[in-house]
Amino acid sequence: MRKLAPSLDWLLVLVPVSIVLEVATDAHLAVFATSALAIVPLAGVIGRSTEQLALHTGPKIGGLINATFGNVTELIISIFLIVDGKIAIVKASLTGSILGNLLLVLGISFFLGGLRHEEQEFNQRSASVHATSLMLAVAGFLMPALFALGGRETFIQREVVSGTVAAVLIALYVAALAFMLITHEHLFRTPSAGEEPSWSRRRAVTTLLVATGLVALESELLVSSLEPALASLGLSELFVGLIVIPIIGNAAEHSSAVLFALRNKVDVTLEIAIGSSTQIALFVAPALVFLSLLVGHPMDFVFSTFEVAAVALATVLVFMISADGRSNWLEGAQLTGAYVIMAVSFFFVEHL
Amino acid sequence: MRKLAPSLDWLLVLVPVSIVLEVATDAHLAVFATSALAIVPLAGVIGRSTEQLALHTGPKIGGLINATFGNVTELIISIFLIVDGKIAIVKASLTGSILGNLLLVLGISFFLGGLRHEEQEFNQRSASVHATSLMLAVAGFLMPALFALGGRETFIQREVVSGTVAAVLIALYVAALAFMLITHEHLFRTPSAGEEPSWSRRRAVTTLLVATGLVALESELLVSSLEPALASLGLSELFVGLIVIPIIGNAAEHSSAVLFALRNKVDVTLEIAIGSSTQIALFVAPALVFLSLLVGHPMDFVFSTFEVAAVALATVLVFMISADGRSNWLEGAQLTGAYVIMAVSFFFVEHL
Amino acid sequence: MRKLAPSLDWLLVLVPVSIVLEVATDAHLAVFATSALAIVPLAGVIGRSTEQLALHTGPKIGGLINATFGNVTELIISIFLIVDGKIAIVKASLTGSILGNLLLVLGISFFLGGLRHEEQEFNQRSASVHATSLMLAVAGFLMPALFALGGRETFIQREVVSGTVAAVLIALYVAALAFMLITHEHLFRTPSAGEEPSWSRRRAVTTLLVATGLVALESELLVSSLEPALASLGLSELFVGLIVIPIIGNAAEHSSAVLFALRNKVDVTLEIAIGSSTQIALFVAPALVFLSLLVGHPMDFVFSTFEVAAVALATVLVFMISADGRSNWLEGAQLTGAYVIMAVSFFFVEHL
Repeated sequence: MRKLAPSLDWLLVLVPVSIVLEVATDAHLAVFATSALAIVPLAGVIGRSTEQLALHTGPKIGGLINATFGNVTELIISIFLIVDGKIAIVKASLTGSILGNLLLVLGISFFLGGLRHEEQEFNQRSASVHATSLMLAVAGFLMPALFALGGRETFIQREVVSGTVAAVLIALYVAALAFMLITHEHLFRTPSAGEEPSWSRRRAVTTLLVATGLVALESELLVSSLEPALASLGLSELFVGLIVIPIIGNAAEHSSAVLFALRNKVDVTLEIAIGSSTQIALFVAPALVFLSLLVGHPMDFVFSTFEVAAVALATVLVFMISADGRSNWLEGAQLTGAYVIMAVSFFFVEHL
Repeated sequence: MRKLAPSLDWLLVLVPVSIVLEVATDAHLAVFATSALAIVPLAGVIGRSTEQLALHTGPKIGGLINATFGNVTELIISIFLIVDGKIAIVKASLTGSILGNLLLVLGISFFLGGLRHEEQEFNQRSASVHATSLMLAVAGFLMPALFALGGRETFIQREVVSGTVAAVLIALYVAALAFMLITHEHLFRTPSAGEEPSWSRRRAVTTLLVATGLVALESELLVSSLEPALASLGLSELFVGLIVIPIIGNAAEHSSAVLFALRNKVDVTLEIAIGSSTQIALFVAPALVFLSLLVGHPMDFVFSTFEVAAVALATVLVFMISADGRSNWLEGAQLTGAYVIMAVSFFFVEHL
Repeated sequence: MRKLAPSLDWLLVLVPVSIVLEVATDAHLAVFATSALAIVPLAGVIGRSTEQLALHTGPKIGGLINATFGNVTELIISIFLIVDGKIAIVKASLTGSILGNLLLVLGISFFLGGLRHEEQEFNQRSASVHATSLMLAVAGFLMPALFALGGRETFIQREVVSGTVAAVLIALYVAALAFMLITHEHLFRTPSAGEEPSWSRRRAVTTLLVATGLVALESELLVSSLEPALASLGLSELFVGLIVIPIIGNAAEHSSAVLFALRNKVDVTLEIAIGSSTQIALFVAPALVFLSLLVGHPMDFVFSTFEVAAVALATVLVFMISADGRSNWLEGAQLTGAYVIMAVSFFFVEHL
């Protein structure tokens, strides 16, 4: 924390700069760049206040808070995009966020953590519950996609299948939370680090909320300047949905996850990275199926073959790598490598 | 047993009722409903006599007997359908039976067993042998499906591929049995429960055979009334093959599997649910490839993408969940959830 | 060794015979048959000298040497085929080599080793690193295949995706080697067998090099006589690429792997079989993407659905079977059975 903070905090100056640029100019590319960069130090602040909160509440709840506040960005961007009717980009950014957390965030955390520590141990049961949850999400992604392959289904049939699958996934998400936090809570307890919080609980919560609000504001600037900015940069909307939005949206989780890995608290890293993916796959994405109905731009739960295959591969890789309850730098490099393979394969694809 | 028995045994009255309806009336829907419901208490009787037999023979052989008698229903229905030339429904019911056992039967057993017992332990090696066998079945389902994707193969080529794959699967089924019952039998022994059988071996066998005969008779009534009954109900034949027939056909295994889970004998539950799936995938389905040749309606071993994907997903889920040799209510809920996701996705599909 | 040697060494007479036939006659089928058979005893000699070298260097380096010298054959055949512009056969033979090592070589080794020894133990961590590497190769095979499914990509896009994926795989191959031989070397040490080498290091190296040179020569005769010979035999080029070339090309690994399994040194068997697959998937195949550019017949990294599915299935099976660090005859039979299922499904396919 202390090491990262000095080098990033000065970027906070970009928060007012991006707002001024948005209000006073037409420079979309400048708004895009400043708002994107402004999110990075805000993510650092979120990470710091989350870490302080985690010291008050314990690593498990701390990890949950982290994942929740990390995903607030994704949720806001998604709703904004749905209102605009850009359903394909929403789906791409959800897939990209799952992949980014599972492969890039976890990969870089394992890699950097593994360079400093020979082997890092974590609660294998927690990783296993998450991996199984993700495999259910793969089932929830794959079966409707196969159902829609025939191409003869009606709108109502699509909505019934999407709604049922979404409801099952949300129910299983709640069930997994109940299992880990209530009925079998003792299996997931991690030993406390013995560190004392240096912020009061009130200060941590206040800072967390303010930083989250600013991340949301910057995210909105980012999204509204996205289309014209991309036209100048020559990037496809799909690539942005799959790769760019999730990297920016996950900056908060990313910096915290790496931080905890460097401090040898890989359990918190896993809770952030895999927990965040699980939350997006089993809660955020299904919830958007229902929320989108309210907005009047219904989003079904039919993902492309590309997206289903990528999420399935990432899930199997994470399962294989986390099965032994230990991580090292090679496993981090392998996850990151898988992310690069997917990113480059997505790069030239116009339609999924 | 004692708890379930009173509430179900009175349904046995539907055995003569269904026969009278079939002989004396044209009420297909009534025959359909009465024969379906009549199978439920018969399944209970089979479960009870199997349990008694299991006390005489030990849980391993008991589980095998259970799986065998549970699959008699599927075998009879399948042969009957093949004689009628309804090959697609046979395949659907075989797939559905595998999915039903792996996800629904195992899921509800784990769920209910897990509500009563915090964690249930089972012989992980047995689960592992079955999971690997199922993955071989997935290979046996997938490769011919890919081979047939091109659509330029001849009838003879299809039959050669189907016959070879079927022969390999049967050989591997026999090999797995030889491994578990002969060469490495000591690895699969489970501690005896210390319970004494209350029926004689003869009484158990006689009851088992009579109940099985009646289940077969009722199954035939069920199948013969299926088509007109479905026309009235508006269900597609495929959905019935995938979901309805297997649920009725697996009622026997289902009630026994849940019963043993509640009594904390999850090893028997696994032998029933996974063992039954293995038997259908590696023995019943391949055997039908050869039996169908005798009947003159050759059934090849080419399954649809939907079916292959669903069986592959179910196998991976069961492998992930059984890898640690422990079950709990969440894992039960997850398997059941996966079944619901598949069932709803299958619901509107007319052709696989 | 002592047992196998007498029965095979007389086949070495086919080395000069095949050369005479090639130089003096037009009998393609005879050249094909004699060169193929000549490779078998040469593989035996390679196995013997590798084993002697392994006694000097330890099982880990010995296994690496084995895999390297086993893959020299594949590399030479591949380059030769690329020069001729037969890209599809190169890809098929790479896939076939991965499948042959993972399923056939490992399967027969486990089977025969398991008949002699009840259970054989091996270093589970080594198997796990290889399995994860293979799953990355699956990602590297699958994603470009999906990218190319649309069919609207340009040649440059194909080359960029292929080159990037190939570079990532090579980097991860080097990383896995660095992990196993340098940073975490102590995790992969296997106890020495206490056997003394009967050849000097110099004699082992010289024999190894001469035998390898002769294998390369015979491989060239084999490949040059392949096309006319196949025309007489009525086999498709694809089947030869997928099944025949790899079986001959892997003869060296095959005999050594079985030998070590019979002697209860399964760690060396695994290093040969899985290590060889990993090397082909993460090093030989990606390297050919770049080498083929030099030759002027660029080979992209886009494999067929059939090939991707087969490699994915084989990887999952090997992961499931090696997860417990023990092997037995059933697991050997299962891997071999999977190979037969794939071979028969490939047999009638003309184009992948």
